[in-house]
Amino acid sequence: MVMDKLTAELYSFLNTTGKVLAVSHQSPDGDAIGSLLAFGGILEQYEIDYVLAIDDSCPSKYDFIPGYDKIRNLKSDPLTTIFPKLAVLDAGSISRIGSAQACIDSNTRILNIDHHFASDFYGHINIVDTEICATAAIIYDLCQKLEIDITPQIAYGLYVGILTDTGRFRYSNTSSKALNICGSLVSKGVNPSLVTERLFFNTSADALSSLSWSLSNMLLYCDGLVSIISLDREHFVKDSENFVDFGLSIEGVVLGAFITEIEENHYKISLRSRCSIDVSDIARRLGGGGHQKASGCTYKGTLEETRARVIDEFTLEIQKTGLTPRELLSQQYQKINAVYS
Amino acid sequence: MVMDKLTAELYSFLNTTGKVLAVSHQSPDGDAIGSLLAFGGILEQYEIDYVLAIDDSCPSKYDFIPGYDKIRNLKSDPLTTIFPKLAVLDAGSISRIGSAQACIDSNTRILNIDHHFASDFYGHINIVDTEICATAAIIYDLCQKLEIDITPQIAYGLYVGILTDTGRFRYSNTSSKALNICGSLVSKGVNPSLVTERLFFNTSADALSSLSWSLSNMLLYCDGLVSIISLDREHFVKDSENFVDFGLSIEGVVLGAFITEIEENHYKISLRSRCSIDVSDIARRLGGGGHQKASGCTYKGTLEETRARVIDEFTLEIQKTGLTPRELLSQQYQKINAVYS
Repeated sequence: MVMDKLTAELYSFLNTTGKVLAVSHQSPDGDAIGSLLAFGGILEQYEIDYVLAIDDSCPSKYDFIPGYDKIRNLKSDPLTTIFPKLAVLDAGSISRIGSAQACIDSNTRILNIDHHFASDFYGHINIVDTEICATAAIIYDLCQKLEIDITPQIAYGLYVGILTDTGRFRYSNTSSKALNICGSLVSKGVNPSLVTERLFFNTSADALSSLSWSLSNMLLYCDGLVSIISLDREHFVKDSENFVDFGLSIEGVVLGAFITEIEENHYKISLRSRCSIDVSDIARRLGGGGHQKASGCTYKGTLEETRARVIDEFTLEIQKTGLTPRELLSQQYQKINAVYS
Repeated sequence: MVMDKLTAELYSFLNTTGKVLAVSHQSPDGDAIGSLLAFGGILEQYEIDYVLAIDDSCPSKYDFIPGYDKIRNLKSDPLTTIFPKLAVLDAGSISRIGSAQACIDSNTRILNIDHHFASDFYGHINIVDTEICATAAIIYDLCQKLEIDITPQIAYGLYVGILTDTGRFRYSNTSSKALNICGSLVSKGVNPSLVTERLFFNTSADALSSLSWSLSNMLLYCDGLVSIISLDREHFVKDSENFVDFGLSIEGVVLGAFITEIEENHYKISLRSRCSIDVSDIARRLGGGGHQKASGCTYKGTLEETRARVIDEFTLEIQKTGLTPRELLSQQYQKINAVYS
């Protein structure tokens, strides 16, 4: 085995005695859960004593990943012992592991494996690549370097991590590497059809009714550049996070909002962009935050007031670009022109 | 270049003089259009005089593929000259090329490149692989063997073919090879995000309203194993083929139908299965046809009569399996169990 410096440090982390607590971030997504389970598969092969934990419950749709039941939910089953070694997967800052922080002291050696742009390098060993599509892809590379046997737990964990973080190979982080790793995981036994069905085509009848209701309330503004959909408490379901994507999938729409009633005259707003406009600016002005393409905040007022405020903010941002609707729209297609030239 | 027999025959086809008519099937899908354009890119490199044609219009959502404008629509712009060479992409039988058949006589040398299970080997050269995910994947292999330069037209054509025929890497034909080829095409310059946005997230506001209306009419039967959605003429839109998938995405649903009003008391029925039940048997009994997992037919009667007939047929098929709802449902998860064992 020829190893670079970081891999050698990981190798030493894995070969030193001492129980490992491996954790991922609260409100875990596919990359958090998948990377954690894949890392658990590595620990297994090094015959290390370990605990896998998340300070939250893991959505049951991930329960097909081998090893899912091994993840301890610290909310219902807290841990207070101090561990000599902590491995943190897919968390940009240590605070995101929540109550798992109670399991470390100044002697705990911390390993941080992550791909978040805002990672604050809190580990003693930081294997951080902000250019890569998913934490799972970093772990895949480490498996190659450490000559780890790709067991079903590792293979399914990594496939889930990459599939979900790329939005089913949709987002701009869908690299050649993302597809090639997944191709290799399929050759190791992953059933891509099963994974996709379980994660993306396994909704509830209530969620579909709720979607139907939301879409019936969709309105377009700003010459069709903006779509706004809303959902009241009566029709609310837990599985509604992706409803905003439907409004954004309309030809010509570059900004979308999904307004959900939390309580009377209090709304949660999800904001999405598929142009150069950074919706996190709007979210921050309204006391929230997030990313350039996906942000969120809350607002107190009636539905009409909330919607009017969102339209005002969107209108302002569109004006600030100084671009015509056609120019804004063409941003989606810029990259293909680059291929031609 | 070391070539197998079939590739050598293709090589000779490409190197013999004579204009080539390259065609694909009517009602072209992504694999038909993408494979045709990719093959056009090969012809280009062999400096052969050629025409690309389909006896139909190509949906405009594919217009981002370089070379899209080169495809002649034989419906609006017929061809009557006889060609010495015909290349047919992605058509299981020669009849599927429609009026392009008028361009061949007994002297025309026919090349058939296809992956359909029911291919009838109508060519003088038949490069048919029924195990492969898409015709585009066969063409990719041929490009490798013939050392073809992967131009943007070829790369985008092939990516579109594989992406659409695997249902965005969802269907059971999603092989390791499908993902690896797409990974390699991304490294050749394909923007996977752009392709996915254009093909899958570029709907009309009317289509979303229509979807909303359809979903509000969704009903579940047979202990939740069956979902039926319907659409009347007033809410009909062209982009509604995928509505049936929403009904089928409900947890526990293994059979789905989408009933669309064609004219008064006359309905089109789309049938879908995600269990061992073969819906093409039902479609054939009602005078239609299709595949095991996706079939269609029409029915004369009121909406209530049509729906009742579909429920009867589904109930019969469920009974014939002799399986419990739980057993039918578990068929979706069989393959992951196989990985464990």
